[in-house]
Amino acid sequence: MNVSSRHDLGPPPQLGYIESRLDRVAELRGDAAALKEFAAHARAGGYAIGGELVVLKSAAGVCDPLFSPAEAPALGRVHESVFLGLSDGAPRFGFRLDPQSIEPLKARNDLTITDLRSIAVQGLVAAEHLPPLAEAKALLSWHARHSHCPNCGAKTEVVQAGWRRDCPACKAEHFPRTDPVVIMLAIAGERCVLGRSPRFAPTMWSCLAGFVEPGESIEEAVRREVREEVGIACGRVNYFASQPWPFPSSIMIGCHAEALSDAIVVDRDELEDARWFERDELAAMLERRHPQGLTTPPPVAIAHHIIRSFVEDGCDVIR
Amino acid sequence: MNVSSRHDLGPPPQLGYIESRLDRVAELRGDAAALKEFAAHARAGGYAIGGELVVLKSAAGVCDPLFSPAEAPALGRVHESVFLGLSDGAPRFGFRLDPQSIEPLKARNDLTITDLRSIAVQGLVAAEHLPPLAEAKALLSWHARHSHCPNCGAKTEVVQAGWRRDCPACKAEHFPRTDPVVIMLAIAGERCVLGRSPRFAPTMWSCLAGFVEPGESIEEAVRREVREEVGIACGRVNYFASQPWPFPSSIMIGCHAEALSDAIVVDRDELEDARWFERDELAAMLERRHPQGLTTPPPVAIAHHIIRSFVEDGCDVIR
Repeated sequence: MNVSSRHDLGPPPQLGYIESRLDRVAELRGDAAALKEFAAHARAGGYAIGGELVVLKSAAGVCDPLFSPAEAPALGRVHESVFLGLSDGAPRFGFRLDPQSIEPLKARNDLTITDLRSIAVQGLVAAEHLPPLAEAKALLSWHARHSHCPNCGAKTEVVQAGWRRDCPACKAEHFPRTDPVVIMLAIAGERCVLGRSPRFAPTMWSCLAGFVEPGESIEEAVRREVREEVGIACGRVNYFASQPWPFPSSIMIGCHAEALSDAIVVDRDELEDARWFERDELAAMLERRHPQGLTTPPPVAIAHHIIRSFVEDGCDVIR
Repeated sequence: MNVSSRHDLGPPPQLGYIESRLDRVAELRGDAAALKEFAAHARAGGYAIGGELVVLKSAAGVCDPLFSPAEAPALGRVHESVFLGLSDGAPRFGFRLDPQSIEPLKARNDLTITDLRSIAVQGLVAAEHLPPLAEAKALLSWHARHSHCPNCGAKTEVVQAGWRRDCPACKAEHFPRTDPVVIMLAIAGERCVLGRSPRFAPTMWSCLAGFVEPGESIEEAVRREVREEVGIACGRVNYFASQPWPFPSSIMIGCHAEALSDAIVVDRDELEDARWFERDELAAMLERRHPQGLTTPPPVAIAHHIIRSFVEDGCDVIR
């Protein structure tokens, strides 16, 4: 326990896309009779997604993201229908539409068409829908980009209710891809490093992040990415939490890291800028009272929580 | 701190495939001039791998796993040559051979042909070679199974020194795949659950494990897998450590989990058996003095360390 000041930011907000209430009942994915029953179930419903866009039924208050298996084809051609699991016994699916076929739906008053980040940040649907929406989005994005066998080039067939694609030519079996990404805060005493991607809103600063590469541990990936992006050497790395991030198919692995050097050298291919931030400045950003209006990512994103825990606990986050 | 007994198992052994000494210098992967220089470097060397087999130069004591860029093609046709990084300035590569072209090499006295697990467990090469061997194995396995574009089926081209494959037809860019796997010990008081895969050596018991699925966090994947494989509900989940596991391209994410139920229901599709083990029994297994000769996985595997930390610290491993 160090003697640095403690900030109390109040009760922690909810991290997005986690704590799914679905039972995935993976053992039923190959059970044709069960799947037929699920599709015909009175409470069956699914999420309609095309590319980055999600179709919602407009409503006062929160929107309804569920379409019955009979309603979905009226929105456009359903390329794949995947079985996500059971929500209190009600079967849940993902329906993959073309992004192009969704565009004209934007004209309809009874529908709201937007992307999943906006849905989460703006709270457009009941919170319980966010994890299965993430599951559907990640799985359907994989189907959209994996119609062919990477081993031999033949067209593949959907099996296991959307959880596998098999190649009829070379017999290879292909499973959905999930890309591990490390996202981290390098810390030295009372300060830490944040960066800005050119894609960010102009006031936003966030944690550094990057894909885990073949042949490295999470801890090695954290040290490599921090060194590559800002030229800082890191020592100890502590895991913090994780979050599915279906843009298109990542899992974010959040860490705190002990910074061992001071001078920042920004990799301008990756970042627009990076600099040290004091805990007090971060507290002002989290509470949206920063004098220059600088902000952190919203609570739906794990970066918010990684930063927040450092503001609250200081360098105690490194054990 | 609980009052359970503490076992002192001595200094911890080294986890396999981590703590790479290579600098991956990712920024040079697209630099043709630098790559040409690396290939011609006097100390350039690479690992020759075909499928599960690795080619080593036989020697008294430890084998030498490095072949110069001139030596590699004499072993067989090199399908892809990938740049792994610099080892104290010496360029390191991976050379992908056909498993079939390696078979006849087994007759040669000057070569040792075996798989990477055996190399690690038996200490056939100097320890510093294990991480780059894992990097090469994972990257080359990906190339072996991804010659075609999953988006359109066309043949893809290797770019970025082996770190990307581009599709000349649809222009899609494809990156090496790393599959996150959770591997965990479900704990209740002084005991924990181990399982046996039918593939294991007859005396070996280990942690449960399974792939992280799209749309779930590490913690959710741990709870789902334990429930699916042995029917036990878990509460708190604590990250322990991680390890690249290039068989063919996983990262193992090690966790301890708080078991909330008692009755084990074994999923016989996944496991041959599973049962509760007391800490004292695990200590005997780790120290190879179990009365029935039961064993844990070797120290090269993260399961060994996950089990060992529970034996040493008891349920304090759950925070």
